[in-house]
Amino acid sequence: MRATIMYGAGDVRVENVPDAHLIEPTDALVVVTRAGICGSDLWPYKTMEYNETGRRMGHEFIGIVEAVGTDVRTIKVGDLVAAPFLYSDGTCIFCREGLHSSCLHGGRYGFNGVDGGQGEAVRVPQADGTLVPLPVDKDDALMPSLLTLTDVMATGHHAAVSAKVGPCKTVAVVGGGAVGLCGVIASRRLGAEQIILLDRHADRIALAKAFGATDIVSERGEEAVTRVRELTKGLGVQSVLECVGYAESTLTAFSIARPGGAVGRVGVPQNELMPAALPSFFNNVTISGGPAPARAYINELLPDVLEGRIEPGRVFDFVTNIDGVPDGYRAMDERKAIKTLIEF
Amino acid sequence: MRATIMYGAGDVRVENVPDAHLIEPTDALVVVTRAGICGSDLWPYKTMEYNETGRRMGHEFIGIVEAVGTDVRTIKVGDLVAAPFLYSDGTCIFCREGLHSSCLHGGRYGFNGVDGGQGEAVRVPQADGTLVPLPVDKDDALMPSLLTLTDVMATGHHAAVSAKVGPCKTVAVVGGGAVGLCGVIASRRLGAEQIILLDRHADRIALAKAFGATDIVSERGEEAVTRVRELTKGLGVQSVLECVGYAESTLTAFSIARPGGAVGRVGVPQNELMPAALPSFFNNVTISGGPAPARAYINELLPDVLEGRIEPGRVFDFVTNIDGVPDGYRAMDERKAIKTLIEF
Repeated sequence: MRATIMYGAGDVRVENVPDAHLIEPTDALVVVTRAGICGSDLWPYKTMEYNETGRRMGHEFIGIVEAVGTDVRTIKVGDLVAAPFLYSDGTCIFCREGLHSSCLHGGRYGFNGVDGGQGEAVRVPQADGTLVPLPVDKDDALMPSLLTLTDVMATGHHAAVSAKVGPCKTVAVVGGGAVGLCGVIASRRLGAEQIILLDRHADRIALAKAFGATDIVSERGEEAVTRVRELTKGLGVQSVLECVGYAESTLTAFSIARPGGAVGRVGVPQNELMPAALPSFFNNVTISGGPAPARAYINELLPDVLEGRIEPGRVFDFVTNIDGVPDGYRAMDERKAIKTLIEF
Repeated sequence: MRATIMYGAGDVRVENVPDAHLIEPTDALVVVTRAGICGSDLWPYKTMEYNETGRRMGHEFIGIVEAVGTDVRTIKVGDLVAAPFLYSDGTCIFCREGLHSSCLHGGRYGFNGVDGGQGEAVRVPQADGTLVPLPVDKDDALMPSLLTLTDVMATGHHAAVSAKVGPCKTVAVVGGGAVGLCGVIASRRLGAEQIILLDRHADRIALAKAFGATDIVSERGEEAVTRVRELTKGLGVQSVLECVGYAESTLTAFSIARPGGAVGRVGVPQNELMPAALPSFFNNVTISGGPAPARAYINELLPDVLEGRIEPGRVFDFVTNIDGVPDGYRAMDERKAIKTLIEF
């Protein structure tokens, strides 16, 4: 079968690899129908040292179940399923608490002999705990939005939940990439009154406004902090969604939260140190977030996608097939595309 | 009147200063009967550059109201009152939310022409919003415990609340100073099942055990993390109270929280940078805390002190008078005392 392998920064190839197949009795074999390229795939694309073995890529996908192991009970051959970006057993202490991203028996696609999602098929461990059957046809028009539930929409929602977004609240979203845009959708969905996007790219800003952003701040650093304060009666916002991960954006996020506010950070920290952020300490700002428990959120978000109340699939502005995967990475890296959808 | 002035590191003096007097119509003039030396007073005692004007010290005190301004309504001459370590109006947007430490019209003792608490009298701004009348005599045996409500017990409670301590939870308290010890009391009071103190000083450990600590970890750094994991089935604790403020202790706090856990930090950050703490990000650990809204907590904690259910006053192990204030600082700085009580 064909799959995506990254050998180093800027070096992504689609190659023939051994066919995916069942190994554990709890596995399912899924033939991929749609996959995404994630903003987090761009971190190794920018920085990975050359490695002759390479690394299998992709963790956002939907597909059809072709086979299941002998212990799989709820997932059936022929099911169209969404795979959250981490697999999880659904039964451990953390899964039971809704934190599937810390599953004691879970893990990541593309590591430890598990296939990546940007390929023709994937062996999915812990199939019963992981996979979510979808009540639509494999080529349904909702496919892009459904695919976002495997990562980016769940992550934007997690940022909003972690930032305690709720009815009538003031919100700022730092970074208008695909996750930030989904954070705008999530904030609107949770009832926020004011949603300020911090970004400077016209295409993202336009989409954010369509999703419900009420204000745009294109300044950076101290100027951005000043501007957000001007927009919030001098107080700062109650909820901040940090959707980037750099030390600078994190400091901005900490600085625009009002006293007693909360920052939901989902951008993977890219710096070893971060500011101690004395102002956020003195303001009793809560900092929360991390990898989204996408498996926990799909049940909540799926009806809104199926019934058309949210359209997160609009973040995909570059569509290609398996041969075009390297182009999809390049377009995102050069900021010519927000997010790439791969059709099989 | 006599008051405490710090001129530089290690240089604390008791000197004659102009008598405290009413200035604003919302002021009260309080004659101090008890005051404390705070762990945070030791930071300038260790590091302050020499300054010929000096800095008025003290922010934990109880006293008798001698005069009130024309706009003061609820506080009466003759009241015995506790003064939380920050003054606050009780009516602004943040006070109404219970975050008096961010009062829009509040401030700190010893700054901007406001007296310090380690002196014979204090002009207390925003008297109605700030002061809490106490239903006891000025020399009641409960005085030490009542005095802790102005800062250290409220701060330990804030650490516990910020760390989401609750019934049957596993808790770790990083640092067994007076705040950490009060954090143990607060954790016990909120129903924690396991309370692990991280400290290595025999006097503190003994008191922590008396207050309800179930386990002691005297290792530091990675070894401390390993030890806490051993004590918690390999998971880490649900709630961590960071009561120190150094980058190292903060990293330890982040590292011993289990996935989905919470860190309540009340130790004022002493380093400009702190670890990005990738493990705590990947574990979705919530970081909260800051200066305690002591004014908000006094109502909740006062009955427990008055009825003897908690005895935080036991953290005072050095008692002196105004002349002994420099000795009180020295004893705490040399770790010969946990905390100093000043009787007037």
